[in-house]
Amino acid sequence: MNTQDLKALIRNVPNFPKPGIVYRDITTLLQSPQGFEAVIHTFVERYQQKNIQIDAVAGIESRGFIYASVCAYALHLPLILIRKKGKLPALTLSHDYELEYGENTLEMHTDALSKGAGILLMDDLLATGGTALAACKLIEKAQGHVVEIATMIELKFLRGRERLAPIPVFSQIVYEEE
Amino acid sequence: MNTQDLKALIRNVPNFPKPGIVYRDITTLLQSPQGFEAVIHTFVERYQQKNIQIDAVAGIESRGFIYASVCAYALHLPLILIRKKGKLPALTLSHDYELEYGENTLEMHTDALSKGAGILLMDDLLATGGTALAACKLIEKAQGHVVEIATMIELKFLRGRERLAPIPVFSQIVYEEE
Repeated sequence: MNTQDLKALIRNVPNFPKPGIVYRDITTLLQSPQGFEAVIHTFVERYQQKNIQIDAVAGIESRGFIYASVCAYALHLPLILIRKKGKLPALTLSHDYELEYGENTLEMHTDALSKGAGILLMDDLLATGGTALAACKLIEKAQGHVVEIATMIELKFLRGRERLAPIPVFSQIVYEEE
Repeated sequence: MNTQDLKALIRNVPNFPKPGIVYRDITTLLQSPQGFEAVIHTFVERYQQKNIQIDAVAGIESRGFIYASVCAYALHLPLILIRKKGKLPALTLSHDYELEYGENTLEMHTDALSKGAGILLMDDLLATGGTALAACKLIEKAQGHVVEIATMIELKFLRGRERLAPIPVFSQIVYEEE
């Protein structure tokens, strides 16, 4: 299944969450076992390569959990949850960041990773990169480092990849313009 | 890995989210590839049985996504997302339900499942069963039916299983008392 086939499984919803935005709806792809498996296999083949040392997979709540869970399972690696504020019960690290409207906070348990660990950070979509950047900062605070950020979708015109540099980004379905 | 081994991987956090509650923290289990794989394998073996006809796996946001994603992937079945209010972009069905404090709403896309589909509903924890029951109602509204509810943890003293009857519940780690 190539990128065009995968793109055909994404539903485009105009004017969500607000007028002028075309929302890329992944639920239709997830309902296709062939589509979802193709996406997972591409990730797994890439991160099984011996030249990319990964110690754990971190997923950003909540859609990032989908890809991170399956990849952690398939790669036999620990799964780390990066959650919204107030959801994690034990001692946490937190990082505040700006959104288009207002502020948000991500949290991770202080003991979620070991010092120096190389982390594969996963989410479903890369837009401006604000959330992914906050997750990277959180992983740095825990003395880990992000080896690569992997997303299923990338909205290239929002330049998240540039904002996240020098951390590499790998995405599978790229939208060049809105 | 038996139930006691799995239980040893769960972290008990007293007084979260409020005094007197012992929170069962699954993040420590997820950080153990052996533990997570054991949980997934038990689910997959159970639902690979030919006498349980399942057409799709539904996960309840957000921790339910973890198990539903991996099981849908491993079982080659469609994955359905049941989300909190306002998150799904296309036409949705919704179901309101009472929480201990206030109200909550779950949503699912109207086209998420086909009429008569048998659904495996997954979440990480069964407490009073309020959320799972709301998800079942949602699936019924879409003219599907829940074949079984599967959770990693069951807080048996909260009697969710009785509330959900006659829909069967399968859980792996049971706490008899608080």
